[in-house]
Amino acid sequence: MRQFLIVGHDAPTTPEFSLDDLAGGAGRLDVLCRCVNSAFFLSHSIREDVRVHLVLGDEFTVRFEGADLRRLNPDERSTAALVRQALEHREDAIGHVPAESTPGVSIRRMGFEETLDHVADGTTVFELHEDGDPIADVEPPADPLFVLSDHNEFADRERSLLDAEADRRVRVGPKVLHADHTITVAHNYLDTEGYTTY
Amino acid sequence: MRQFLIVGHDAPTTPEFSLDDLAGGAGRLDVLCRCVNSAFFLSHSIREDVRVHLVLGDEFTVRFEGADLRRLNPDERSTAALVRQALEHREDAIGHVPAESTPGVSIRRMGFEETLDHVADGTTVFELHEDGDPIADVEPPADPLFVLSDHNEFADRERSLLDAEADRRVRVGPKVLHADHTITVAHNYLDTEGYTTY
Repeated sequence: MRQFLIVGHDAPTTPEFSLDDLAGGAGRLDVLCRCVNSAFFLSHSIREDVRVHLVLGDEFTVRFEGADLRRLNPDERSTAALVRQALEHREDAIGHVPAESTPGVSIRRMGFEETLDHVADGTTVFELHEDGDPIADVEPPADPLFVLSDHNEFADRERSLLDAEADRRVRVGPKVLHADHTITVAHNYLDTEGYTTY
Repeated sequence: MRQFLIVGHDAPTTPEFSLDDLAGGAGRLDVLCRCVNSAFFLSHSIREDVRVHLVLGDEFTVRFEGADLRRLNPDERSTAALVRQALEHREDAIGHVPAESTPGVSIRRMGFEETLDHVADGTTVFELHEDGDPIADVEPPADPLFVLSDHNEFADRERSLLDAEADRRVRVGPKVLHADHTITVAHNYLDTEGYTTY
């Protein structure tokens, strides 16, 4: 399974935001929505063997489970509506028990550290870093977890936590990309297994 | 220069559409907006050496010129607003004379055939095709033009025109991707020059 954890530093933690202002009042939720798009969509299907974790304001984590998703569309607005529906169920997420809001979408009362701890187990954790190894030189693992930040850099404490968990430090090319573009390149790297077998 | 031509089959040809319904009433303009995003955005800058041509309903073409762009933001809604502003200037586009609507964005009264003819000159035309060569095996040219379709397949006539113009027939991996994801992978291929030099 391929997993992507994206930290939304300014993302909303309540459902009181407008779908008309994702890049403004909704704390750049547009970035996270594009990450969900890149993680799941193929031309005519959804990647079922993918799981996405959106950390919202270090308070909640919304999980998208590829095998169970039913109402995901590619545009930012409809994905943001799914996140809003998840946040409407935030009071049902008690302790670490998740609350499912729509098929394949659930919310947990967990910030970055707890989510990373919880998710990293059994995976190969990829940290994206400008000084990392070219990803094309790395043998694709069976169960990668890519940990990404939204439009902001990781905070120092997050970077320390990630450094401690990371199995590989990689870069996807000579240029630093947006998180959603990084996900697309990561999928392509995994799809093509080092660009030699397709 | 890297160029991307994307055909929006259902895209609006007048500015009478709602920014709240890009994936519905606006004829999947969300797809084209994501293509613009993928074509131009780096993490902290815009790719200036890029030009994008959006063919709208085989009637108009909206051009985005990387070196001149001033008001481009990553989210779908604000990019759609730029397209709408371009369409507000459509009456000023007479013959093949463009009308600039905002810095770096202009509209031309040209459909797919005319735009392809006009743009292909001096470029290496890449046709994306499931049976094409793996793009990683192709030496990156100086001035590539990637021709893509929105959420629809190319119509037969469009495919014939493209077949006649294409210099290379490629695929970006074993899976068929959305147009915007294809652009991201194409950029990564060009950035990394065959994945060996970064």
